[in-house]
Amino acid sequence: MAGGKFITFEGPEGAGKSTQLQLCAAFLRARNIPVVTTREPGGTPLAEQLRTILKTHRGGEKLHPETELLLMEAARSQHAREVILPALERGETVLCDRYYDSTTAYQGGARNIDPELIAGLNAFAAGFRKPDLTFLLDLPVESGFVRAGKRSSTAGEYDRFEAENRAFHEHVRQSFLAIAAAEPERFRVISAEGTPEEVFDSIRECLNELFD
Amino acid sequence: MAGGKFITFEGPEGAGKSTQLQLCAAFLRARNIPVVTTREPGGTPLAEQLRTILKTHRGGEKLHPETELLLMEAARSQHAREVILPALERGETVLCDRYYDSTTAYQGGARNIDPELIAGLNAFAAGFRKPDLTFLLDLPVESGFVRAGKRSSTAGEYDRFEAENRAFHEHVRQSFLAIAAAEPERFRVISAEGTPEEVFDSIRECLNELFD
Repeated sequence: MAGGKFITFEGPEGAGKSTQLQLCAAFLRARNIPVVTTREPGGTPLAEQLRTILKTHRGGEKLHPETELLLMEAARSQHAREVILPALERGETVLCDRYYDSTTAYQGGARNIDPELIAGLNAFAAGFRKPDLTFLLDLPVESGFVRAGKRSSTAGEYDRFEAENRAFHEHVRQSFLAIAAAEPERFRVISAEGTPEEVFDSIRECLNELFD
Repeated sequence: MAGGKFITFEGPEGAGKSTQLQLCAAFLRARNIPVVTTREPGGTPLAEQLRTILKTHRGGEKLHPETELLLMEAARSQHAREVILPALERGETVLCDRYYDSTTAYQGGARNIDPELIAGLNAFAAGFRKPDLTFLLDLPVESGFVRAGKRSSTAGEYDRFEAENRAFHEHVRQSFLAIAAAEPERFRVISAEGTPEEVFDSIRECLNELFD
């Protein structure tokens, strides 16, 4: 195999991305496919430092949308060059919880920064390597709120992104759907409303296609 | 006055940027011109956090040039929006120790990243506001080494940029001179080889022009 496959999981909070990523990793490992699992923002010690700033920054100094975008891309640049690209090079399959489509949807679609500038930054930060396959776990905003609410009532407070309002999250959902529609070869839009097993049934089919 | 003046100080380590900036601030204040002094990377608590990463990062995980660039621009984005643009808006003159020409010279010229991409990022991070006047304090690489060496032997160790080799710093110098040549209206190239008072004599003349 000439290099591993790069598979990303996108969608709103509460769509079950992490669960599906773990099911996917187990499924591939059972087929003796070497797998690396990782997430964004983060994935290296330095990028996790930036994740902490992005997720928890509060207080007197406003974190401006332009700064948020540049920090995301800085974390991605480090993550791509330290983890993702070397693993693909070694022939391992990389499963990543969020990647640059999240930046397009959150910082572009919902925060209204020039999409062309974001596309250029995404490509640059990613070292010009696109994902081979992207699962968009799609969920109505209301259902995502209910799920994220359940989680945050056990795990503590909402983070900066979860705390945004309903219109913001609706904008994010529509942006994701538009991105997926623009790249139908790369994207598989999966309804995230069923049980984890039902959702994984759809994902398994796509994996079988990709690895056959 | 419709908005304050934005004046930046560029050049290699050891050229005396901070000293000249302070002399400049004192001179303008004596003429009752309100002045804000600041520096890059840094200038806000969040941007100073990023400065610490940029200046002191060492150890197992390499800080990749692309990440370095994006972190610089993230710090700048925050600094411009929190400090520089509001001060100019209030009619204050902003004196900044390094600004985006340093990024062009260090990350573009010397680290070899696409100059067009850097120009786009500089403009975006700066909120599309150019400096009104930029002093390039020019110094042969050897003289800068001698001065920075004196300083680091009293102040501790070299930082990540000071530790680069002679060819890197020669490349930075030539990049600065090329940037200045491309924007002669904005730049004043000042020889930094004299005493601080001699250097400031040249700077004072330019200030008189700008504020008359």
